[in-house]
Amino acid sequence: MEFSREALIKSVSAQMPAKRWKHTLGVMETAVKLARKYGGDPERAEKAAILHDVAKYWPVERQREIITQNHLSPELLTYDKQLWHAEVGAFVAQTEYGIEDREVLDAIRYHTSGREGMTLIDKIVCLADYIEPGRDFPGVDRIRKLSKSSLEEGLIAGFDSTISLLLEKRKIVFPLTVMARNDLVRVLEENE
Amino acid sequence: MEFSREALIKSVSAQMPAKRWKHTLGVMETAVKLARKYGGDPERAEKAAILHDVAKYWPVERQREIITQNHLSPELLTYDKQLWHAEVGAFVAQTEYGIEDREVLDAIRYHTSGREGMTLIDKIVCLADYIEPGRDFPGVDRIRKLSKSSLEEGLIAGFDSTISLLLEKRKIVFPLTVMARNDLVRVLEENE
Repeated sequence: MEFSREALIKSVSAQMPAKRWKHTLGVMETAVKLARKYGGDPERAEKAAILHDVAKYWPVERQREIITQNHLSPELLTYDKQLWHAEVGAFVAQTEYGIEDREVLDAIRYHTSGREGMTLIDKIVCLADYIEPGRDFPGVDRIRKLSKSSLEEGLIAGFDSTISLLLEKRKIVFPLTVMARNDLVRVLEENE
Repeated sequence: MEFSREALIKSVSAQMPAKRWKHTLGVMETAVKLARKYGGDPERAEKAAILHDVAKYWPVERQREIITQNHLSPELLTYDKQLWHAEVGAFVAQTEYGIEDREVLDAIRYHTSGREGMTLIDKIVCLADYIEPGRDFPGVDRIRKLSKSSLEEGLIAGFDSTISLLLEKRKIVFPLTVMARNDLVRVLEENE
């Protein structure tokens, strides 16, 4: 059984610090706006936004257990812990919140990494996560500006900023993010 | 039958413009120096260096044919043509120049992209290609400097500069290069 919007908000917000819930409210608001602008479904985009960080503050060991016991994506465990909550969040959305909408689940699953062949709702949630009003990082204003005319241009700029930052900080770059970014560049080239 | 060093040089140099052969001479010289410094085999490193760009100026359609007909790596054809000559070069080294040394062939094959688990000779040839004396691109001096104390640090800086340039130019980033770079970062972290 699915939760009502109010029950979902109440339960999810209780699983993170107030500051992170404020971020989630920003992603919800931005995802709804982007959905309206780009022909997506605001209600489904908002649902994915509510849930996108549900597992972000769960203990890392619990996240690891969920990934391992449910054979979610063992390769993920060899990458940064920051990536785990997205896969875990999709699992939790399905098993604990009764979400059955595959596209909503995938939007949660790929909100941090992106993927090749991103759907409209994938793009909306991922981009909203980059540009919600509370975000403040070098280049965010450029991403916000690009997002006003193209979801894809906004996302390419977002992924480029993530990849550049990881190179600079000598952190591991998740190959799927590079593939997501390449795919968007190719799609835009083909449509030129 | 393998060619003598002189015959190899004569035949390979005839397959590219003088300017590119000058680059190859630089890679040969640098690869030998790096091999001596880091405990590699100077003779095998030089052999890979002589041959690394053998197919670089072959017509692109001939390169495509060689990849397709010999089932080399069909996925490569979906990436930038600049990457093809390395795979084709390794094939040509084996079939037309009689090179049977697997490590020499792999060093040719991965000299542009890198790969996970790079061997010593892979690293030497790839890094020599970045820093030979004729190279002049933003950041090359930093890579040269790092190469004096660590092959891996030099390569990470080289791959980072390649990836950053591709992002900036909105070109496709070859995922294997990101994986090669991640792998080197991991290896250095483990050895800290």
